Amino acid sequence: MTSRESVNASAVRDAGDVKSWDLEADVVVVGFGCAGACAAIEAAEAGADVLVLERASGGGGTSAMSGGLIYMGGGTPVQRACGYDDSPEEMHKFLIAACGPEADEAKVRMFCTESVAHFHWLVAHGVPFKHTFYPEPFMEPPTDDCLVYSGGEDAFPFDRIAKPVPRAHKPQYAGAAGGFLMQKLVSATERSGARILGDARCETLVVDRQGGVAGVVVRHDDAERCVRARRGVILAAGGFIQNREMVARYSPLLAKCSFKLGQDGDDGRAIRMAMGAGADIIRMDAGEVAIPLTPPRRLMRGILVNRVGQRFVNEDTYYGRAGQECLFHQDGRMYLIVDTAIYERNLAGMTATHVEDTVEDLERSLGMPAGVLVNTVAYYNHHAAQGHDPLFHKNAAMLQPLTTPPYAAIDCSTDKTLWATFTLGGLHTRATGEVLTPDDAVIAGLYAAGRTTSGIAAYGYVSGISLADGTFFGRQAGRTAASAAR
Amino acid sequence: MTSRESVNASAVRDAGDVKSWDLEADVVVVGFGCAGACAAIEAAEAGADVLVLERASGGGGTSAMSGGLIYMGGGTPVQRACGYDDSPEEMHKFLIAACGPEADEAKVRMFCTESVAHFHWLVAHGVPFKHTFYPEPFMEPPTDDCLVYSGGEDAFPFDRIAKPVPRAHKPQYAGAAGGFLMQKLVSATERSGARILGDARCETLVVDRQGGVAGVVVRHDDAERCVRARRGVILAAGGFIQNREMVARYSPLLAKCSFKLGQDGDDGRAIRMAMGAGADIIRMDAGEVAIPLTPPRRLMRGILVNRVGQRFVNEDTYYGRAGQECLFHQDGRMYLIVDTAIYERNLAGMTATHVEDTVEDLERSLGMPAGVLVNTVAYYNHHAAQGHDPLFHKNAAMLQPLTTPPYAAIDCSTDKTLWATFTLGGLHTRATGEVLTPDDAVIAGLYAAGRTTSGIAAYGYVSGISLADGTFFGRQAGRTAASAAR
Repeated sequence: MTSRESVNASAVRDAGDVKSWDLEADVVVVGFGCAGACAAIEAAEAGADVLVLERASGGGGTSAMSGGLIYMGGGTPVQRACGYDDSPEEMHKFLIAACGPEADEAKVRMFCTESVAHFHWLVAHGVPFKHTFYPEPFMEPPTDDCLVYSGGEDAFPFDRIAKPVPRAHKPQYAGAAGGFLMQKLVSATERSGARILGDARCETLVVDRQGGVAGVVVRHDDAERCVRARRGVILAAGGFIQNREMVARYSPLLAKCSFKLGQDGDDGRAIRMAMGAGADIIRMDAGEVAIPLTPPRRLMRGILVNRVGQRFVNEDTYYGRAGQECLFHQDGRMYLIVDTAIYERNLAGMTATHVEDTVEDLERSLGMPAGVLVNTVAYYNHHAAQGHDPLFHKNAAMLQPLTTPPYAAIDCSTDKTLWATFTLGGLHTRATGEVLTPDDAVIAGLYAAGRTTSGIAAYGYVSGISLADGTFFGRQAGRTAASAAR
Repeated sequence: MTSRESVNASAVRDAGDVKSWDLEADVVVVGFGCAGACAAIEAAEAGADVLVLERASGGGGTSAMSGGLIYMGGGTPVQRACGYDDSPEEMHKFLIAACGPEADEAKVRMFCTESVAHFHWLVAHGVPFKHTFYPEPFMEPPTDDCLVYSGGEDAFPFDRIAKPVPRAHKPQYAGAAGGFLMQKLVSATERSGARILGDARCETLVVDRQGGVAGVVVRHDDAERCVRARRGVILAAGGFIQNREMVARYSPLLAKCSFKLGQDGDDGRAIRMAMGAGADIIRMDAGEVAIPLTPPRRLMRGILVNRVGQRFVNEDTYYGRAGQECLFHQDGRMYLIVDTAIYERNLAGMTATHVEDTVEDLERSLGMPAGVLVNTVAYYNHHAAQGHDPLFHKNAAMLQPLTTPPYAAIDCSTDKTLWATFTLGGLHTRATGEVLTPDDAVIAGLYAAGRTTSGIAAYGYVSGISLADGTFFGRQAGRTAASAAR
């Protein structure tokens, strides 16, 4: 229980103890970010009476804080207009590799097969996309352009696993488009007929004699209200990155990251509520870990080395992948080494922390064991001059020997710069949104989607997956709950 | 639910649905390995009427399969007789560093402070220890000697964090002593007056209206029996390494290890039972990962390199630490590189997989990028000749340049040799043995110890910690449960 909480989230309420229901609906959606919105729209369009409960005063959630990238592919109209030939099979190959180990095959398959249809669904619900490509990868375009590479699809090893194409789609809005996306989805939710109650913080679930979920207890107007869900409750209330105790307990390495990406509501309350009703939690150690080294992408012509001066990853990969490699495998310590021909202040404002006339001096200044960084740079330069990276297979176009002094290091360690992180672990769900127990049994009346669950990205990550997970599997949960016979 | 299970472990039974209790005790202990035995002894000696339920026909569990090392220190009679000066403070410093990140400070502190007393308790309960030291580290001595280094206490970085002393104590029995230890603890349990019921597999917990645990449902003589626990149920039934689905779900990398250390009962059933009663699970991704590279220790004069030919760890550390580094940080791929002066077949029977007259040829034969292993060996040899390892600080006594051809590699990758593993994650408990919910609330009537819980070793591991955890925290759980007022 965190300090501000008055009721333990996992202490479920017995339905027999509910004297009267203050509110009722067929489907009760907890959380009004992209997953909650899409769940509500689908459920309402399937004919259900829907009530959305949001602890903030209005919709948006962490989705509205995001850049707005939505991972979609398999041949969307935008991909085709921009000359990229994609298929559900290539998309599947990429995601299984990039989101593993042990990515949820059923979720990935459904997500890839129905991705083009999902694009059209978003357009039909008011989300516009420009049919244009933007060449700088990973982050949302500063323009209103749409399509970007967002997961290292065109870098090793993925360029050898699946045909490289860009798949992150940004709604047509200049710059970060998460707020714009949520405006559109909130409007669509209102049009769907779903009722929306703001300033309503869910406290715990109501469970019936058979162990099924019958409703939620919510705090609203300074009073406790019991809300009956005739068909089901959908938890779509974000992850747990803002809950310090939970992060320490489940994923202590994530605690090292200075910038916790998420609004206050990402305190894992919905996860704990579901655990009280018997839900399993999986991949709780997993996290997205992004160091915004780029833009500009040219900085990745430098090399990333660990604390002893060894390279460990191809620098042209998605920076979230470099971040995960560093945090989980290199103790969170990493330097970007560049020469004067490459150096430039990056968009995030990271600047050189060490500058020296020779690599030997740089190595000494960094406190590295003598000779290792010198060897690393000599080996890299020798092969880069020939257009090869035998060690980590960086693309030839990004290979440029470091030969123009002075040389500089940017200390990218967790304690030295901004590392943005959020949690990827959560409730174990089926692709339908049904929540599972540790025995893989379905909990009647309980559904979940978005960062409250472990989604497509089991461990690895790709920019655009969270909004994709939330919107796509929010829809599945909404549809499943609406059709539940209880 | 695994295929052989008829009742979902996490589907708890409502006490109101129990028509009559078939058996009763103050304290019901589930599992009869070292944790269950010590819990039963303590509870019985505290005056409780104790019933031990074991699914096998007799006591022993995975503890009886072990080498018998028990981690104890702070100045035990054996340490003192062998000339080692230890203190609870030094032991605490070592364990916090070796068992982290985020080792449970309260558990480590209690464990260190009371370690000498725990040694005397074991002796008083019939477990003898010879007052001798055995110089080959990590594994149980083949003799009846007692004390060994078991966690890299005398290797970097721990030799700089705490005063290096050996702390693993083996009961006085030639060779693997886990079976001998369990004979003694089973006898002590019988003497304590605790009742023991074999061939009794626990199915699920019985929960009362207030959410407290009132008993267990057990399958015995082909019938279901309800067992009432007047003061509490203690879960001490091992980890989940033998449950393929749970390993895939919570720690997919452990699935790569070929040898799952544990008897059939380590199927995580007790963990799932507790989850059904609202328990939290933590560190579920953590695992012990041992590659028995030694003995003989002289092999560690070679170097361990990753798949591209870089070193990544000081080879003289505990092999379980090398194993964790390799599995979790190097994708489970590793080679031991030696020359003819060092090479010898090890005890586990690992032999050279690649032999060549030069390091260049060895590198080629291993399919590594040209020049990296050559650089690694040249750098290592240059400094080893001067008695230094600037990269990973291997002890001078273990440094020996690789200069006598032919050169050999032993492929130690997960798919090429025996990797022994078991799970370290489990129920979140207090040092007292009380089981916690995700809101850090105590579940009335429920206690746990041993590998069913996350213990002293949060992520890192040291040989001897599991029997230490089981015996020591089994005792705490027994004492706490016996004194519970319900």
